[in-house]
Amino acid sequence: MTHRPTTPLAGISERSALHRLLDPRSIAIIGASTNPAKRGYQAIRALRDSGYAHPIYPVNPTATKILGVDVVASIDHLPYGVDIALIALPAAAVPRVLRECGAAGIPGAVVLANGFREIGPAGAQLDAELLSAIADSGVRVIGPNTSGVFNVETGANLVGLPGVPNGPISVITQSGNMLLSLVNDNRAVRGPGFHSYVGLGNQADVRYDECVTELAAQSGTGAMAIHSEGFVDGRAFLVAAADAATRKPLVLLRGGRSAIGGRTAMSHTGSIAGSDAVATAVLRQAGVELVDRSDELAVVAGALATTASVRPGRRVAILSDGGGHATLAADAMTARGIELAELSESTQAALRVLLGPTASVVDPVDVAGATDADPSIFADAVEILMKDPAVGLVLIVGLFGGYHLRFDRSFESVENDTATELLALSAEYDTPLLVQSCYANDKIRNHDRLRAGGVPVVASVDHAVRIAEALDRRRVRRSTAHRRTSFVLPAPAKPVATHPGALDEPKARALLEATGIDTGAWTFATTIDDVTAAVTEFACACAVKVVCSQVVHKSDVGGVRLDVVAATAAANAQRIIDTVTARVPDARIDGMVVTPMAERGVELLVGATRDPIFGPIVAFGTGGVLVDALEDVAFRAAPLTELEAHEMISETRAARLLDGYRHLPVVDRNALAEFLVRVGDVVAAHPEITELDLNPVIATGNSLVPVDVRIVIGPTVPVPMERNS
Amino acid sequence: MTHRPTTPLAGISERSALHRLLDPRSIAIIGASTNPAKRGYQAIRALRDSGYAHPIYPVNPTATKILGVDVVASIDHLPYGVDIALIALPAAAVPRVLRECGAAGIPGAVVLANGFREIGPAGAQLDAELLSAIADSGVRVIGPNTSGVFNVETGANLVGLPGVPNGPISVITQSGNMLLSLVNDNRAVRGPGFHSYVGLGNQADVRYDECVTELAAQSGTGAMAIHSEGFVDGRAFLVAAADAATRKPLVLLRGGRSAIGGRTAMSHTGSIAGSDAVATAVLRQAGVELVDRSDELAVVAGALATTASVRPGRRVAILSDGGGHATLAADAMTARGIELAELSESTQAALRVLLGPTASVVDPVDVAGATDADPSIFADAVEILMKDPAVGLVLIVGLFGGYHLRFDRSFESVENDTATELLALSAEYDTPLLVQSCYANDKIRNHDRLRAGGVPVVASVDHAVRIAEALDRRRVRRSTAHRRTSFVLPAPAKPVATHPGALDEPKARALLEATGIDTGAWTFATTIDDVTAAVTEFACACAVKVVCSQVVHKSDVGGVRLDVVAATAAANAQRIIDTVTARVPDARIDGMVVTPMAERGVELLVGATRDPIFGPIVAFGTGGVLVDALEDVAFRAAPLTELEAHEMISETRAARLLDGYRHLPVVDRNALAEFLVRVGDVVAAHPEITELDLNPVIATGNSLVPVDVRIVIGPTVPVPMERNS
Repeated sequence: MTHRPTTPLAGISERSALHRLLDPRSIAIIGASTNPAKRGYQAIRALRDSGYAHPIYPVNPTATKILGVDVVASIDHLPYGVDIALIALPAAAVPRVLRECGAAGIPGAVVLANGFREIGPAGAQLDAELLSAIADSGVRVIGPNTSGVFNVETGANLVGLPGVPNGPISVITQSGNMLLSLVNDNRAVRGPGFHSYVGLGNQADVRYDECVTELAAQSGTGAMAIHSEGFVDGRAFLVAAADAATRKPLVLLRGGRSAIGGRTAMSHTGSIAGSDAVATAVLRQAGVELVDRSDELAVVAGALATTASVRPGRRVAILSDGGGHATLAADAMTARGIELAELSESTQAALRVLLGPTASVVDPVDVAGATDADPSIFADAVEILMKDPAVGLVLIVGLFGGYHLRFDRSFESVENDTATELLALSAEYDTPLLVQSCYANDKIRNHDRLRAGGVPVVASVDHAVRIAEALDRRRVRRSTAHRRTSFVLPAPAKPVATHPGALDEPKARALLEATGIDTGAWTFATTIDDVTAAVTEFACACAVKVVCSQVVHKSDVGGVRLDVVAATAAANAQRIIDTVTARVPDARIDGMVVTPMAERGVELLVGATRDPIFGPIVAFGTGGVLVDALEDVAFRAAPLTELEAHEMISETRAARLLDGYRHLPVVDRNALAEFLVRVGDVVAAHPEITELDLNPVIATGNSLVPVDVRIVIGPTVPVPMERNS
Repeated sequence: MTHRPTTPLAGISERSALHRLLDPRSIAIIGASTNPAKRGYQAIRALRDSGYAHPIYPVNPTATKILGVDVVASIDHLPYGVDIALIALPAAAVPRVLRECGAAGIPGAVVLANGFREIGPAGAQLDAELLSAIADSGVRVIGPNTSGVFNVETGANLVGLPGVPNGPISVITQSGNMLLSLVNDNRAVRGPGFHSYVGLGNQADVRYDECVTELAAQSGTGAMAIHSEGFVDGRAFLVAAADAATRKPLVLLRGGRSAIGGRTAMSHTGSIAGSDAVATAVLRQAGVELVDRSDELAVVAGALATTASVRPGRRVAILSDGGGHATLAADAMTARGIELAELSESTQAALRVLLGPTASVVDPVDVAGATDADPSIFADAVEILMKDPAVGLVLIVGLFGGYHLRFDRSFESVENDTATELLALSAEYDTPLLVQSCYANDKIRNHDRLRAGGVPVVASVDHAVRIAEALDRRRVRRSTAHRRTSFVLPAPAKPVATHPGALDEPKARALLEATGIDTGAWTFATTIDDVTAAVTEFACACAVKVVCSQVVHKSDVGGVRLDVVAATAAANAQRIIDTVTARVPDARIDGMVVTPMAERGVELLVGATRDPIFGPIVAFGTGGVLVDALEDVAFRAAPLTELEAHEMISETRAARLLDGYRHLPVVDRNALAEFLVRVGDVVAAHPEITELDLNPVIATGNSLVPVDVRIVIGPTVPVPMERNS
């Protein structure tokens, strides 16, 4: 007998299901327990201990009160429209419970149980039932196989972790232990604390992209710290991230980047990590700040949550109280490609007056002992630097804040006052400040004062420089946001082919030309006489290549003749026919492509693939026969903009070949960028193209001639997702 | 009037001056002061506070007692043969004082003052006087511009830093602040403490190489943490480090690696950092563990000081209590090139029984919740892993040690007992253990128990993996020590040339052949008839190249003709003469080199240079016209061994071309390694050769034919040291 609730919950929310999941104003605990060892008991305790002030509904058929809270006998006895359900029941019960939640008007559920896709074939059946229940009920599900969700501000602690400080970092991960690491790392560096936590587990329903969009809209979120082992729909994540990153910084640590790591991630959360090089490139393209080290996630996210970007058009100035740290900071900046500010002569003169004859007054500035007797000089030096129009961020390295520990206790009040003054300067000059101090791990009042004012204080030079890098990259992003892709794919154009497989070269060339990409002069000859006519018409040495669907590597079977002139054309064509038919007995020769021999130029690689996670991707790099050995290739998601094409070119070693390297001609970078944009537009509009290879493209001036054109059409059924890391 | 000491100090040491500097049993404070703000007062206080139990002699002309210690009026009133003098006087006084110390039988001095070479031209005069005084007096000097030296074990604290814990790490740096960072970093990670500290400052006399040798001989030093901005004699450092590293691990952080950092280092300690790529390669060749991050120096040195290498012939096993950390650890291992152990079937079966059906029993092993209710299961799992003959180190990642904080206080004693058991297992199976725990920054008894037993416990996955990498590299070094160079240069051979400048090609080829390096078939033709004769004799297509000292880039001025056959030889030779003389009016053509056209093969680069810091260096990489763009080059100090040549080859992308890449022939790696060893022997024995370039060398099978041979002879006067970073 189904109970029909007669009293809907007062003020049923207009908010979206996901909004209610991340900021619930009423919570049902399905599987509530009187046993303190059970999660269904601990969850209620955690909510109360965290100060959750909204209604809690423990659901249990036999108990009446748990921890003083009235128990509801079953889901259908709940008031209609509770915000979310925490399902603390074994996997097998979950599909049924979800359907009951749907009937009770609960829009969202957190499913803790494991035993679904992440355990492999044994969990497949239950996983299918879970997906059906989600579809049927309309309940939005976070999990399964999750540690829960947590809104620190409201105390909606469905993770059970005590003592998480309230602050601006919001976390999305697939690992509960990663949350523990972040909380402990944040505590160790005295970071700014947390706002929301979402443990996505297997992402059976709610995914990263939706959470990113939701958290970017929360006023309490200053920055997102994201740990992911894979995206279900990478393209959707790119779209959401690129949009969210214009408002809130996204910092991402990816697990499963290596082959072994990818396998581990699969057995952990059933996630597919995909190609690391592609993921790294396109996530950065979307404005996501990628960290390579797990110990940087809390530090960088904390800094981005509290600290402004480097000022537009300006650079970093280092202020050091010792040459050792100045040198290391400058090295680390260089290694990360961050330029230091060129200080004006008047700045240098002012620093010389302040700091005396032994100081270094170019960036990195080294006070060389000038602050030993009076740490307040730091504020004077910072003001001189912030006045310089070249300076967009000041990084102090060395001992600041610990002078009273190292030299003299009486410095304590001086350092406290200096910290206050530094905050005022940062505000007055609208210029962010970072501090590295080897005393940063101590509990020092002036450091905490700086942190509270949005100045990160860290012990590690490397962390400080890593933060500067992130703030500097945000400077670049902000000034170029309007020149970047939204990652939204256009509506598919009319397919260029319907049968899967490689197009023959004439079709491939014709396809590119139809989309406005010139492939240089060529003729498709179907008779030997046609070959001779084509070579005669080109009136220069030509390449003649067999067109034959049975041949994959043309030159391996004698299917290519070079430097063919009119007089030798017929003989060469006959030689191709003889050799190919001898070596490939079933070969059906469709004809031959005749092209003028390529001019001398820079050999480039231009290509495109359809990534199973992120969709259409453009590749660019050094072309020619060494391409596999060199692995000099940059990736971008298509469609891409000209700015992004230029950035892509600059990342490669091929870029060094473009400006007149040795005896090679100069290549027009604008023409090259435009070419890459067009290739991107083609693959973005043609989902049936799964592979496009132009290798080499011979580049001279603004001429870009693909010597070989290879296009592969995929099957019309969606390509199954495959690991390709 | 000079006072002659009549009472030499009892038991004058037989120990070397440097030994006495690093472990002084009597100390004179020159410039002792009654003013507590002065270093000459603080030094005495620091010695007393640090428990220094040997004689202290403050030297001051007016005072009688300082801090209760009897004052000596002048240096010549000291007992003869005090171990060391701390000179706390301004720079100008230092040369005179050193001479007085020498007369008083003091073998070593620590000079704190700055104002010498590090301030540039203004300090040059005083620097010269300092060097004279050192030479004249025979006193070994540490500094100037140093924070001092410190023997933590004896309390010989000449730095003034309080509270440095006694332990096995010995530090050599040029930055006093770096010592502060190391001490604070060590404290933050609850590391093992310090034994000796040497601040070398400007290295006017005592250098890194001597300190490394001295510290390696100290029983109290477990590992060295070295920070350097440059080596005065890099070759001496390589010799000393390679020898010391067989006994004690050396961990090195280099400052001044970038151009800006190098400039900063120069103004900090007058140091020359040199080429970063060369320094990185040769220091690693010497067995030095290089860290790229300042926040890794204390962590890695602390671990190497207390923890054994990965067992020979074995690999790393990861044991995790969560998939997130297992994945990240596996990724970080892969990124650092560390192989994980392949666990035997019986190991996997035993883990399955212990950990249940959801655990991952391949490396990385993930207990997947099996330890949540009983952390002692870690010890059982570790024992299973250590029994496996594939496992040479176990790395635990996740929460271990913090279960009592995360789950239940009652786990505290279980975790303490488990820690004890883990130490016993590590000893029983002679297998090192590392622990990463996100609770490592808390003060936890079981963690400290592990640390005291030589098991590093760290919070960062990256630090844990970095330690594993260092222990793994030590495994490799230990098993191959006998197959590596000592870096000792042979006595110079008879010079091959005395005039500086580039040798002409026939001389360069003859030189190589004289040393046993085949340069392929070639003839030096001095007439047109000789050219024809040579081409005729080779009976194949040939290359003809002009020999002319006025021509640097032969092909740019028409000095090279390819594919020359007998019939066209004379015309080609005449064409070369005509073109070159037309384009280079003052050209004096000495003749032409005729070689058979190179076969198709792999184009490699083999070269050698004389590094201003480290001496003769061999280079290897991808050759041909793209060489500058690709920058695919590995370096080794010469003379090098075959093993080192093989390692060098493997580091390059060129290595991918050697095993039959595309249509290229297979190259015999042994022949290539032997070739590199011979080139190394040549440049090691011929200091007059400053540059040797074979680019390309065409490699096919075991044939290695240099197409071009370029050798430059340096001036006979020593090359002035130059920055080349």
